[in-house]
Amino acid sequence: MSIKAGIIGATGYVGEELVRILCRHPRVTGITVAAKDAQGQPMSRIYPHLAGFADMEILDLDRVPELISSSDLVFIALPHGLSAPLARQILAAGKLVIDLAADFRLPDQALYEQWYHAAHEAPDLLGEAVYGLPELFRSAIPAARLVANPGCFPTSALLALAPLMKHGLVEQDNLIVDSKSGVSGAGRTLGLGYHYSECNDNVRAYSVAAHRHTPEISHYASVLAGSKVEVVFTPHLIPMTRGILSTIYGRLLRPMDAASLRQIYSDFYSGEEFVQLLGEGEWPETKWVQGTNRCCLGLTVAGQRRLIVVSVIDNLVKGAAGQAVQNMNLMFDLPEGLGLNYPGLYP
Amino acid sequence: MSIKAGIIGATGYVGEELVRILCRHPRVTGITVAAKDAQGQPMSRIYPHLAGFADMEILDLDRVPELISSSDLVFIALPHGLSAPLARQILAAGKLVIDLAADFRLPDQALYEQWYHAAHEAPDLLGEAVYGLPELFRSAIPAARLVANPGCFPTSALLALAPLMKHGLVEQDNLIVDSKSGVSGAGRTLGLGYHYSECNDNVRAYSVAAHRHTPEISHYASVLAGSKVEVVFTPHLIPMTRGILSTIYGRLLRPMDAASLRQIYSDFYSGEEFVQLLGEGEWPETKWVQGTNRCCLGLTVAGQRRLIVVSVIDNLVKGAAGQAVQNMNLMFDLPEGLGLNYPGLYP
Amino acid sequence: MSIKAGIIGATGYVGEELVRILCRHPRVTGITVAAKDAQGQPMSRIYPHLAGFADMEILDLDRVPELISSSDLVFIALPHGLSAPLARQILAAGKLVIDLAADFRLPDQALYEQWYHAAHEAPDLLGEAVYGLPELFRSAIPAARLVANPGCFPTSALLALAPLMKHGLVEQDNLIVDSKSGVSGAGRTLGLGYHYSECNDNVRAYSVAAHRHTPEISHYASVLAGSKVEVVFTPHLIPMTRGILSTIYGRLLRPMDAASLRQIYSDFYSGEEFVQLLGEGEWPETKWVQGTNRCCLGLTVAGQRRLIVVSVIDNLVKGAAGQAVQNMNLMFDLPEGLGLNYPGLYP
Amino acid sequence: MSIKAGIIGATGYVGEELVRILCRHPRVTGITVAAKDAQGQPMSRIYPHLAGFADMEILDLDRVPELISSSDLVFIALPHGLSAPLARQILAAGKLVIDLAADFRLPDQALYEQWYHAAHEAPDLLGEAVYGLPELFRSAIPAARLVANPGCFPTSALLALAPLMKHGLVEQDNLIVDSKSGVSGAGRTLGLGYHYSECNDNVRAYSVAAHRHTPEISHYASVLAGSKVEVVFTPHLIPMTRGILSTIYGRLLRPMDAASLRQIYSDFYSGEEFVQLLGEGEWPETKWVQGTNRCCLGLTVAGQRRLIVVSVIDNLVKGAAGQAVQNMNLMFDLPEGLGLNYPGLYP
Repeated sequence: MSIKAGIIGATGYVGEELVRILCRHPRVTGITVAAKDAQGQPMSRIYPHLAGFADMEILDLDRVPELISSSDLVFIALPHGLSAPLARQILAAGKLVIDLAADFRLPDQALYEQWYHAAHEAPDLLGEAVYGLPELFRSAIPAARLVANPGCFPTSALLALAPLMKHGLVEQDNLIVDSKSGVSGAGRTLGLGYHYSECNDNVRAYSVAAHRHTPEISHYASVLAGSKVEVVFTPHLIPMTRGILSTIYGRLLRPMDAASLRQIYSDFYSGEEFVQLLGEGEWPETKWVQGTNRCCLGLTVAGQRRLIVVSVIDNLVKGAAGQAVQNMNLMFDLPEGLGLNYPGLYP
Repeated sequence: MSIKAGIIGATGYVGEELVRILCRHPRVTGITVAAKDAQGQPMSRIYPHLAGFADMEILDLDRVPELISSSDLVFIALPHGLSAPLARQILAAGKLVIDLAADFRLPDQALYEQWYHAAHEAPDLLGEAVYGLPELFRSAIPAARLVANPGCFPTSALLALAPLMKHGLVEQDNLIVDSKSGVSGAGRTLGLGYHYSECNDNVRAYSVAAHRHTPEISHYASVLAGSKVEVVFTPHLIPMTRGILSTIYGRLLRPMDAASLRQIYSDFYSGEEFVQLLGEGEWPETKWVQGTNRCCLGLTVAGQRRLIVVSVIDNLVKGAAGQAVQNMNLMFDLPEGLGLNYPGLYP
Repeated sequence: MSIKAGIIGATGYVGEELVRILCRHPRVTGITVAAKDAQGQPMSRIYPHLAGFADMEILDLDRVPELISSSDLVFIALPHGLSAPLARQILAAGKLVIDLAADFRLPDQALYEQWYHAAHEAPDLLGEAVYGLPELFRSAIPAARLVANPGCFPTSALLALAPLMKHGLVEQDNLIVDSKSGVSGAGRTLGLGYHYSECNDNVRAYSVAAHRHTPEISHYASVLAGSKVEVVFTPHLIPMTRGILSTIYGRLLRPMDAASLRQIYSDFYSGEEFVQLLGEGEWPETKWVQGTNRCCLGLTVAGQRRLIVVSVIDNLVKGAAGQAVQNMNLMFDLPEGLGLNYPGLYP
Repeated sequence: MSIKAGIIGATGYVGEELVRILCRHPRVTGITVAAKDAQGQPMSRIYPHLAGFADMEILDLDRVPELISSSDLVFIALPHGLSAPLARQILAAGKLVIDLAADFRLPDQALYEQWYHAAHEAPDLLGEAVYGLPELFRSAIPAARLVANPGCFPTSALLALAPLMKHGLVEQDNLIVDSKSGVSGAGRTLGLGYHYSECNDNVRAYSVAAHRHTPEISHYASVLAGSKVEVVFTPHLIPMTRGILSTIYGRLLRPMDAASLRQIYSDFYSGEEFVQLLGEGEWPETKWVQGTNRCCLGLTVAGQRRLIVVSVIDNLVKGAAGQAVQNMNLMFDLPEGLGLNYPGLYP
């Protein structure tokens, strides 16, 4: 089988990562890209590191119909709010969609509109959208026409939380997710908060008690637990380019030692090629997963019931483009790690 | 009044900061410095930025008696375990001591030995050591002969926790302190974990559930609360030189809105020149306090009872040398901010 | 004597540094600030690290007349092209001007217009403008009404070149200035080239053979030499916030050893409090001058005639605001280092 | 054909990069690694990002004979001085050697001993060592038994200089190479100069007029020119992990415009998959080649005769491990880019 892929929003960092991964994917035979404001330039002019690998012309957004018709699957990597009408258009053309924005991540229109302060333009599609976090919700992905690719923070948090939720091990109203993110998570759009001189040698919390990934984490944690989970989530911006480290704090319902807990995690993620569980006393670093689709987990129990889990991912890969390609592989019945199975860059 | 100051351990970053601050202090008329391995060199050869400001010879440690006799007050900035015998020696000479190591921070010998895995060599002095966090424990400092200067993480955590403790507002067994520290906190001693290529563009948790500042935070929080407090504390190393940002998570015993809580903090820190409380929706950044003795606090309440407080300090100043000079000022009945009252460096 | 200072363009990094330095200057009794787009906010809202030190309201630019009338001296820290009409207005009010833009740095209108691609709006004032690099052109500054504060790169280059020029030691058509600058040199204005994710862990040359500081370096080097000097100047952007390191390459007209050359530099800068000459084998680092008005120089001779000089400055201090205050001190007959004589921040 | 590769010195950054590249190389069927001080641990314990890709045990150096006998080709990635005896041993066993240290780079024993201050232990092998910079000296590599892999700075400099040398375009005693290097170039060995707090937000020149790569650059530039070339080379350490940017300054023997010069470069590097020449006004950035074997070149002419060429490489890939694999491919008659032909990581 060969796949022709389209990418709408190719000039942001997530779009770029999709191109980087897909241009080396053994089953992808064509990539069509579109974006606003790139004026017919080759992709490799916007991203010179892709010269020789991705020199295709960037289509204006008004040529999206052309992109759709020449693609089997379309990735949408635009700011939230723009995907809903596009998804409808792509599905109508009989093609598959993986949306990397937030439009189809939340389960219902009201929750979306509450957190994103905008009307949802395709609420009828929410029902068929599948949340594309393969390690936790794999079964529905192969048959999906529309996959909602998870947010970067939710990916890092849910992979750390899932075994706890599935086994009902913790107080579900007493979970803290404290995340530290590299600046590429804010995209390529300019802002004083992402200006080098302001970010360098600096750290800050942002969107405290108000970040839009909060309901996404709480909802899917609840789905896994089978009952209501409410997390407190605080993201921090730290001076690095890539990576998210999430530190999760919970309280066990009954005393358990770290070894028992590790065994539960180990069983839960048995056979998962992109989840790596560390031993006692080992703690993951974001640089260990730089450029890769891997999630690395460390954990311990403090006292009898205080649980600490640390997860790291590359926000642009497992947190976005890599996971999208993992979903694509599932949708096309390919080995899940195809095109994603390479070691990261260190140091 | 003029003060002659001695610094033992002058070549580490904390020692350097003491010299930087004291060499411009209007009442300090002499500084004598000692360190191991600096072989009689001038201080400004080890730290060229001090040329013209601190060119005094660095004494070998076997000349400490000379340093003591020429000083009114001696700062000890050595690794823990070395201060106890030195403090005894300095006090015996009738001079004052501010210890920047951990030797006199914990209230009793057993707790020290449990966490530091070493015998305490001057347990008899623990009783008279005063914990030098002026905003919280000011009254005992002026009359102290021996001040234990707080750890950097405890300073950032306790200033954020104190109003909650004093007013009994939160569940005392449900407190999380998640701290993000710059690398200078690890000192100038070499280690693979502080090698540039390993730290840059990377973040990791360390000493999870095992950091030695944990009992210090819990103990002084308990003192403030008047009953047992147990915090979970996790430090993270992030790629910046200076600064600590601590995110504190707690659960209020009864619902309270952010405005009421802010008023409590505002009253608590009224008149404190080094504590700055931010308004609703404002969150502090470490770079705002770079090079200064200031602590900056932001807070909010999520839902009805979830409390989030963020504090930032410069780990080498309010977290070490600056606070020590603040203590010195109190011990010599000088204005508390003397020599410390300057704006920071930004960006 | 007391000085009332005005700053037009206070919200850029150079404006901020002027405020930081002046708010602690012992002879400055008032600071009035103006900027566009700050809408009557206090200075410390734009720069929170100044809270308690600089809480004055920022005036809109249409209130500049008010600023002028309440000031003895006005600093202009705006993009080039805006200073010329303002300078005329300030001088007409009988006040002094220090311009931190490029408008009055070049000696004649034609050269300005050639490099800055814009008409000069006050060419009649070029004749009386004094180039404010005190170590090299001190004599004219005290009596000046209008001082052109040097560019950051020219300051770093000219201090390294001056002894060579004065003594006619090198081939004057064979000089290379290779500079490495921190990102704050580009100011606070947003641009993709200064976006954190693009700058971090990256280095690039820019404005190669075309940077506007080239004619400024060549002109003042020529003035010092008494005959035409033409330098090749290449700036590079490196991932740090502050600092410029310039590496200067020249060829000696006749063989000379490093010791002799060092003696020439030592004599030339004898008594200069802000120039520090290093010994053989010592090379300066930008962090040694972070936050200070100091320039630090290292040099050697390779083979018989190849000369290498390295200079470091803080681009925002000696390269801008600090040097402007140094000029102010001279204009008001104060000790040249007043308010500038403090050690830098390290690490 | 399948290749069994051995790596001696696998735990340094160059060794790690060799493993990273070789473990995905389609023709490498086995990798044996040795290092000192790794005590039989798996490679992926030393470098956790390699877990699942390189879990082989690290042999102690006393098991090198075993490594040699199980390898077709041995890469030596040790500090200089150790390769010479090892190379002899490997050749004696009938295996091929690529040495990534300096032992076989310089053409004669005297020059080596002058710059490296140590006796050369296998001077008899210097004659048959081939300098492995394929774009410039490709022809001798396929038949070589012993390849000296170029230094990182020489690679960046020589690729920029080669067309000028070959065509005799510049004054050969008037060449400046000003290089800016990431810190990984210093390896994983600890040193105060590579300590995070010392390197971050800082830049310095080092080994000025004394760096050991100087004779290597001058010698091979001379070989290309057919007559003596003497370069002035100054490396600088800048706060980033990977990458070298070299700025080359020369003076043309006769006036030439940039377009003509670009044509010469374009012809010279025609068909080279790892050299990318930029257009007028374009300047390369190190991040464009991060993780890749690519060299990217920009150039211009200032005035009539001043030439500026900028080159960027990844010091660990084209500057070390990648180039070594490129050499391996040539030695085994494989497509030169095999295993190296992937896009880099950006941002």
